[in-house]
Parts: sequence; C-alpha cells; structure tokens
Amino acid sequence: MSRIYETAEICFEGAAPAGSEALAAPQAVFVKDGKELSVKGFYAGGGLYKVRFLPEEAGTWQYTITGDGTERPLTGTLEVTAQETGETQAEGAKQGPQGSALHGPVRACGTHLKHADGTWFYSFGTTVYALAHQSEALMNETFETLADAPFNKVRMCVFPKHYNYNHNNPRYYAFERSAAGEGLTFEAQEGDQVAGMSDAKDTSVNNWDVNRPCFAFWDAFEDKLLRLQDLGIEADLILFHPYDRWGFANMPQQDNLIYLDYLLRRLAAFPNVWWSLANEYDLCLAKSLQDWEEIEQFVAEHDPYHHMLSNHNCFKPWDWSRQNVTHVSWQTRELYRVQALLKEYGKPVLIDECRYEGNVPESWGNISGRSMAQRFWQVTVCGGYCTHGETFYPGTKEAEFNTQTGESEVVWWARGGRLHGESPARIAFLKEIIDSLPGPIEPAAGGLQAILLMSPAEQEKVLEQTPEGFRGFLKALLAMSPAEQERFLAFNTAYEGKVGDGDAFLIYKDTECSSLADLSLPTDKTYRIEVIDTWEMTRETVQTGASGKVQVRLPGKEYMAVLAVKE
Amino acid sequence: MSRIYETAEICFEGAAPAGSEALAAPQAVFVKDGKELSVKGFYAGGGLYKVRFLPEEAGTWQYTITGDGTERPLTGTLEVTAQETGETQAEGAKQGPQGSALHGPVRACGTHLKHADGTWFYSFGTTVYALAHQSEALMNETFETLADAPFNKVRMCVFPKHYNYNHNNPRYYAFERSAAGEGLTFEAQEGDQVAGMSDAKDTSVNNWDVNRPCFAFWDAFEDKLLRLQDLGIEADLILFHPYDRWGFANMPQQDNLIYLDYLLRRLAAFPNVWWSLANEYDLCLAKSLQDWEEIEQFVAEHDPYHHMLSNHNCFKPWDWSRQNVTHVSWQTRELYRVQALLKEYGKPVLIDECRYEGNVPESWGNISGRSMAQRFWQVTVCGGYCTHGETFYPGTKEAEFNTQTGESEVVWWARGGRLHGESPARIAFLKEIIDSLPGPIEPAAGGLQAILLMSPAEQEKVLEQTPEGFRGFLKALLAMSPAEQERFLAFNTAYEGKVGDGDAFLIYKDTECSSLADLSLPTDKTYRIEVIDTWEMTRETVQTGASGKVQVRLPGKEYMAVLAVKE
Repeated sequence: MSRIYETAEICFEGAAPAGSEALAAPQAVFVKDGKELSVKGFYAGGGLYKVRFLPEEAGTWQYTITGDGTERPLTGTLEVTAQETGETQAEGAKQGPQGSALHGPVRACGTHLKHADGTWFYSFGTTVYALAHQSEALMNETFETLADAPFNKVRMCVFPKHYNYNHNNPRYYAFERSAAGEGLTFEAQEGDQVAGMSDAKDTSVNNWDVNRPCFAFWDAFEDKLLRLQDLGIEADLILFHPYDRWGFANMPQQDNLIYLDYLLRRLAAFPNVWWSLANEYDLCLAKSLQDWEEIEQFVAEHDPYHHMLSNHNCFKPWDWSRQNVTHVSWQTRELYRVQALLKEYGKPVLIDECRYEGNVPESWGNISGRSMAQRFWQVTVCGGYCTHGETFYPGTKEAEFNTQTGESEVVWWARGGRLHGESPARIAFLKEIIDSLPGPIEPAAGGLQAILLMSPAEQEKVLEQTPEGFRGFLKALLAMSPAEQERFLAFNTAYEGKVGDGDAFLIYKDTECSSLADLSLPTDKTYRIEVIDTWEMTRETVQTGASGKVQVRLPGKEYMAVLAVKE
Repeated sequence: MSRIYETAEICFEGAAPAGSEALAAPQAVFVKDGKELSVKGFYAGGGLYKVRFLPEEAGTWQYTITGDGTERPLTGTLEVTAQETGETQAEGAKQGPQGSALHGPVRACGTHLKHADGTWFYSFGTTVYALAHQSEALMNETFETLADAPFNKVRMCVFPKHYNYNHNNPRYYAFERSAAGEGLTFEAQEGDQVAGMSDAKDTSVNNWDVNRPCFAFWDAFEDKLLRLQDLGIEADLILFHPYDRWGFANMPQQDNLIYLDYLLRRLAAFPNVWWSLANEYDLCLAKSLQDWEEIEQFVAEHDPYHHMLSNHNCFKPWDWSRQNVTHVSWQTRELYRVQALLKEYGKPVLIDECRYEGNVPESWGNISGRSMAQRFWQVTVCGGYCTHGETFYPGTKEAEFNTQTGESEVVWWARGGRLHGESPARIAFLKEIIDSLPGPIEPAAGGLQAILLMSPAEQEKVLEQTPEGFRGFLKALLAMSPAEQERFLAFNTAYEGKVGDGDAFLIYKDTECSSLADLSLPTDKTYRIEVIDTWEMTRETVQTGASGKVQVRLPGKEYMAVLAVKE
C-alpha cells in the first residue's frame, strides 16, 4: 500500500555487487493501464537492493525487476491510493503529508510553479548549505526552526562545505575513501583555501572511491529529505560546489557521473527534491563548461520524474534558456531585472541568492532585515521568487546567538540552528498575502518602464504611434543608448504585479515615501483596497467598491504596499 | 575702492539706446601691470549704463570705456585692495565677505573645485528652482533657512517655473512683452501642460521682446545673487528649462542669444555665479542639439571670468567631455558611477539631481531623509559632489509645513521657504567631516571593483599578472560580458575614498550592517581611527597609533562609516 506522491520502496536481497557498488542498478518497470515507467534501483549495502518509485497516479501498478541483484525477474503489485481529502488533510494542518508529498512534485508551469496535482507552489526559499552535515542535535534544532518558519524550499548541499564560519567535518561522507584519501583527517587549518576555487588544483587524484558509497551517509541524508518532506519543504539539492577541502569539488568527471548515477537512483523518487547542479558553478574551477553541460544532460536523462533542474552562478549567469533547465536560479543583486528575465526566458525566475541578512564583514552577508524583506517584496511582486539566508557573525551577540547545542560558529546559512533575524516574520507576512491571492503574480508595471523593457523595434513602433505633444518626450527617453537605458532601469523600476485578468493588483512602493498612490483599476469590476505596511506587518482596508481611477492616502514612509483585490 | 573678488561697478549716464536696449554694450578695458581684461557693460534703464568688473588681483586698475552710452572714452582708476586676513575675517565668521566674495570664483581643478585664491570648494548643493520668483516674504524666509543650512550652492532658474506644486506667477519677468504677449495673464489653468516639453510647440512667435529687458526684474534678481553671495553660497544659474507656461522655453534661437548676451554682461562679474545651460536640456524640445552647442559656445565665449559651466539632463547625459564644459552636472540615480565618471571625464562630478527627500507621489520626490543622506555619503566618499532637494507634499503635515508667509503650495525644491526634512542635519554633519580633512577625496575602492572599472585591455593585463590559484577566480569574474559587468557594478560598489598620499581614508559602509571593518593602512604612518554613525551623527575615536592591517568593531547597523586620519 502506497499513497500517491509518496516514495514507494521495494527492497530485496541479492548477491553483493561484484564490481562497483555505485553502478549496480536493478532495472524496474512499473505498468498500469498501459502506462509504463522504467526506473533503476540501487545497492543499499549489506546485500540489500532497493527500487524506489514515485507514483503520480493512484491504482494498481504492476512491476517487474530484473538485472543487478536479481537472479530472476521479481514481480509484484503496488496499490497506490489517492490522497485523503477533507478537513483533516487541509493544507497547513501539519498532520499527514505536506507539500509535495500531498500534491506531488513541483514543476514549472509557464513562469510559475505547480505541484503535480495542479496546486500552485509559491516558492519562499531559505539557505542552509551544510544542513545535512551537522550534529544530530543541531539538525534537530534546524528542523524545529524550519517548522515555525515561512520557508518551503531549502538550498542544501550533498557534499560538506568548507568556508568562513563553517569548518566542521561531517559525521559521514558520501563515499568511502580511495587509497589516496586513506588516513586524511581533513581538519580545517588556519588559512585553508577553498579548494574548489583554485585553478591550481587538478582532478587526476580522487580522495574518494565513488564506486563504494557510504551507505550510512545516504541513509542519514535521506532522513533529512524525509524530515523536510514532512514539513512540506522542497529540498533544492546542490550537487556540486567549490567550498571544499575534502576533494569532492575536484573529482574526475567520470567519477562525478558515477556519483550522480547513484544519487539519482536513490533520490529521484523523493517528491520534494530539486536538482541544483551547483552552487556557483562558475567558481568550480575544476569543471569546464563542457563538463557542466554533460552533468546537466546526465541529470535530466537519469531523472524519470523530471524534477526542477537549474544551475546557480557566482558571477556569470548559467544559460537558463537551455532545454533541460526548468527555471532561472540566479545569484544577483539586480532584483530590478526579474521582469526582464521572465520575458527573456519564459521560465520561473528564482533569485536564489541576493545577499543575506546578517552582520558578517563580507558584503554578501550583512544586509539588514529590512533589506532582506524588501528584496522578497521586490522579487515577489514582479512575479519572481526570492530565497532567504541569514549570516549573523558568531559571537557578536553571544547570549542571543548560542544555539541550544552549545556549538560555536553556527550561522544559519551554512549550518542551520536558530534564526535571529528580523526578516523571517516579514517573509511570513508576505507569504500569507501571496497565498491569499487568487493566483500567481505577473509583472504589471507600465509607463516608461514598460517601454524601456521593449526591444528597439518595439520601441520604434511605440514612438510612431505616440501623438505629437508627447512623442518628443518619449524620444528624449529613447535618445539614451541601450546601455544607458539598461542602467537607467536599474534605479527606475516600479515593483507592480497583477493576478489574472484584473483579479488583483499588488503594488510595492519600495523606498518611496509617497503620501498618495494613484491606481488605475479596471472600470468593469470593483475592488477592495488594502494599504499594507510591509515592515510593521499591518493591513488596513481603506476602500471597498473601488473602480477606475482611485487615489489612496499613504503614510509617507518606506516599504508600503497597496493591494487591490476584486470583490 | 574695491575689494578683490567682489564686483566693481562703474555707472555712467548716457543717451538711451536707439535700438535694442539689450544689445547696447559699452566696451571696457581694465589694465594693470600690463595685464588687460576686456569686458562689456549693459544698459540698466533710465539713461544709466553700467560696467561690472570682477578683479582677481589687487592693485590699481586703469580702465577705459567706449562705445554704447559714451560720447567719448571714459577713463578712470579702480583701487582694488586685498581681502583682510586674520581672526575677524576667518572663514565662517559670518561677517564680511563669504565664499567666492572672499576667495574668488570657483573653478575646476582636476576632478575637484577651487576658489581663485586656491581654497578648496567642496560643493554641498541644494535646489530651489524658482527661488527668485517668489514673494519678498517667502524669499526672506528662504534666505533665513539657507543661513542655517549646510548648503553652499543653489540650483536656481533665471526664468519662472511652471510645474506641479509650483504655479504662481512671478512679480517680474526678464523682458517686457512683445505684441504677441500683450494682455496675456499667464494664470495657471487646471490641466496646463508643461509648454517646453511639448514637441508640438513652435518657436516662431515670442511673447517676449528680448530687446527690452525688464530692468526691475534684473535688479531684483541680482539682489538675490548678492544675498546668496553674502551667505557664501554659489548660484548655479539655470539659463533655460522646459517647465514653462510663459513662452521662455520656446523663444527663437536668435532671441535666446540676445537674452544670454544681456545676462552675461550683467551677471558674469558676480563672483558666485555658475552657468547651468539648462535644467533637463533634453526635455527642452524646442531646442536642437545644434542650438545647445551654440548656446554652450556663446556662454563660454562671452564670460570673461570663465565661471563653472555645464548642462544638466533628464535622461540623455550631456557630453561633458566637451571643451567648454567644466564639470559633470548629472541627473541620475546611478550613484555607483561617480568613480567611473571621474575616470572617464577627468572633471568634477556633480550629481545635481538624485531624487529629493519628500513625500510627493512622483518617485523623483519621495525618498526618505535617510536615503538622501545616504546619497550624499555615497557620492562624497567617492570624490563626487551631491545636490539636495526637498519635496514634501503641501498640506500633508499642515501644522508643520505652513510657511511663515501663509502661502500655500510651498515646496522647498521649487519655491524655498523652510526645510522640513531629516537630511540637512546629516549633510551638515558630513560637511563638517569633509571640511576637516586635509584635502579633497579621491575614490579608493580596490579589489574586484577596481578590476571591473578597468578597460578590457587593462583587465587582460591583470589576468596575465595574477598567479595561478587565484587567476581562475578572476577569470570567472571577467567571464561576465561587459554589459553584465556593468550591471554587476551597480549593486557591488564599495564607497571608499582617500585623501592625498595616505593622509586620510574614509570608508562608507552604506547599507552593510557589518560587525567588523578590515582596514589596510599604510605601514609607514600612524592613524587615528573614528567610527562614525552617519545617521545618528556620532563620531567615536576607537584607535590611535593605528598602522597596517587593522580591524575595527562596528555596531552591525546600516549607514556607518570609518575614518582614518594620519596623526
């Protein structure tokens, strides 16, 4: 008995693999009503093989397993029931399946995201890179924090992480050591460099024997995925990253692919996984562009469920127009470009790193809670999705920042623990508003901004159609070169969104301290208008039955928003 | 008896001009010790002619006046004394000459500004466009406000201004009416357009007879220049602008030049005038680029004193590399570009419009006081100069915003009156710090930012010289296209300045809430280090005798700065 959207697992014993334990891959075929899905299993150690299957239809699935680990075909049936519905299973009930285990894996739908059952998924991400590489006590604290936080996606690494404020060795590694790695302690030393970011490293020696998975690692890692799944949180799994002192960032490409092969057979049947090929692919200096394209293709081909797949940059954006890429996963501070990117790629735009709330000296990690909350509003109102992170310098507020575990150097963005910032409450407030809307948001800014976002040919056409008396003004605008126009947009972008065909309008006033907002609502509908203080987290209905040109009084302070919802 | 750097005026009676009262121009030559300066006078009405002369050397000047208004050459001597020095005339004493009347006209010196006597001029501007077109009571209030404000430059128009929150007719106009203008009342009407911004206007009819100056206007206008001079404030005179309903924005070009000819003969001898060819030249749709170039050349040629001269944009930047242009006068929100522009133009960079503190609905006029103060710090620390403006919506805070004059619709940026914002105090605090430095600031940001500001060829050279181990990281940075690099800079700019050869360093942390700042000071000097809270306006000396690598504890909040001054 299985439930739709939850991982079904078939275990069987067999002879231990003669060759690579990573590559031993039983073949399974699942059939129902003429539908057929081929998946591969994996060797789980101790003479045990497993095949995992993520059913997306209820009913009776027949399966046949052959190949590695089997002496003769294994057959059987899997009864898959639909999810229960009704009050007890209502979203947010915090009992029974949540998120993807309730609604199915997340996939792109135009520029937005939907679960397999058609439920919209509005991503509100956070970042805990080395979540799975901490002590049990610290991980427990992390999950407790996540249970009360607004986040429904976590960016996290498969491999451990070595970087400022993040120097611990994990309990397990994904593989057993090779001869080259035998005896290495990997203790962090003063002045250790980030190995994956050095172009002096070669990939001819691997400390790890990718053909011998460390089964305890994978069991423990999957436990974390299940705990996220129980919280309704997507695991945006980072498959490679440069922040390394163990050698995982500099494995030979054939070993990278063996690792991915094993990982995909183990993890693809989890409903809540996403594939982030890298954190900062362009700083993984041991990998060429060709390596990355091969990795991308390999992951896409070997995932029977077509989970979300993207690649994340430090500087140079990945080419998100590529066919295997489901969404933009951008590290940037150029948040004004969400609208342009939605237009350029026609895919969901996730700002997966936009600086972190905190107080470390590094500029990527010392924005205020106000600024973090502001970024979520800027991105969200334009139809994108933003990702949070928190980096308070360990020890700067001792009493406050010690974790329950007593461990030092615990910063949320790397290791988890507790949240200390001011933004999560504001992000929760925003999420509540977004969840209450009748659908996802599309960018809606008009005026000069809309014209500047057009191609030169489109701009020329607008000019032709503009009557004398105003045409000269537009010409003055478009007298700026394309580069000047682009730079102009960076600081002249209005953050305005709409839902459907006039179902709702959400205008974020950002740092504007306006005392008035002018709205042009459709005249064939009436609206309830709310003034929202995004920082103080207050909502006030100021008009009902509003239609057409409407003027709304604002308090003349930063970070206000106006919401108009069709009555 | 005249004093150096103060306007000397020689008046004489003569027959009223037979032709144009504007073009009647007595010729004067001033000679001293073989030095010779030719200047022209003007007709002042009522049979009176005047020649004004701005002496920049003390001593006995011989003059001869011929031409219009004279029957035979008028000769005489002008004794010019040096400025008194000593305690009673100390800068800031607020008695006796101030600013340019004490130190001489301001001129560009590299990327900075100096008075004629060699005193640095650090520009802290504000904006009161229609300052000179208000009631006497309101103008008095404006000057009282300026006397207590930190500003030493005011952007102000010669012609009256018509725009939102600014609809009054002035008492005087620069010229008498032409037949076409006779009987026009110029009362502002609901829905009036900004005439100068319409490309439907033609310039074949002029409401004004530029050959008949309104002498009362000019006398009153000059009184305002003198009152600014007495306060040590530069008048950045805007010669044209589009915000018009009277017709001054759409005069024929030959009339524009007659106007300028008269203006320059009257005003060039004021020590504290600058020429801003326009406010938003690119929205003055009646003027072609060729017209502007002619105007620029005309002003430069007809100003014997070579006052500061620039042109100000709405969208398309003026070409500030042109020979007659003394400085960049940029309307922009791209404040991160100050460093790049200093490099590009090698001239002073004045950000003469960067949004205004206020709460009007228009985005150009509703930033917070915090944001205005932030902009001053961003620009100043990088070696540029910033200009303030204030636009609180009239009536939004009635009790607070009524002026003493009882007039309605009084917004500082257009009409003057009183200041209500939070930024002026912070600008005064910044000015105090800058005035205390041993010299002007040069941009000093290093690291990736410095590399991104290089040309592609320079970048290539840096790459070659970077050792393996770090070269790959730099390559990753430079893998971004030039456009991507430019966009990256917009939100990855550090605001850091230095004075001289290590005399002082000023680092503005902007929105970074860092708990630590790392300084690399020269090892051959020692420094006193201050932590500055630019918003709370506090300064604390945290280290003395500091040298080399220094770490400074910061409070982890926005808008902090660190100053290191050589001991």
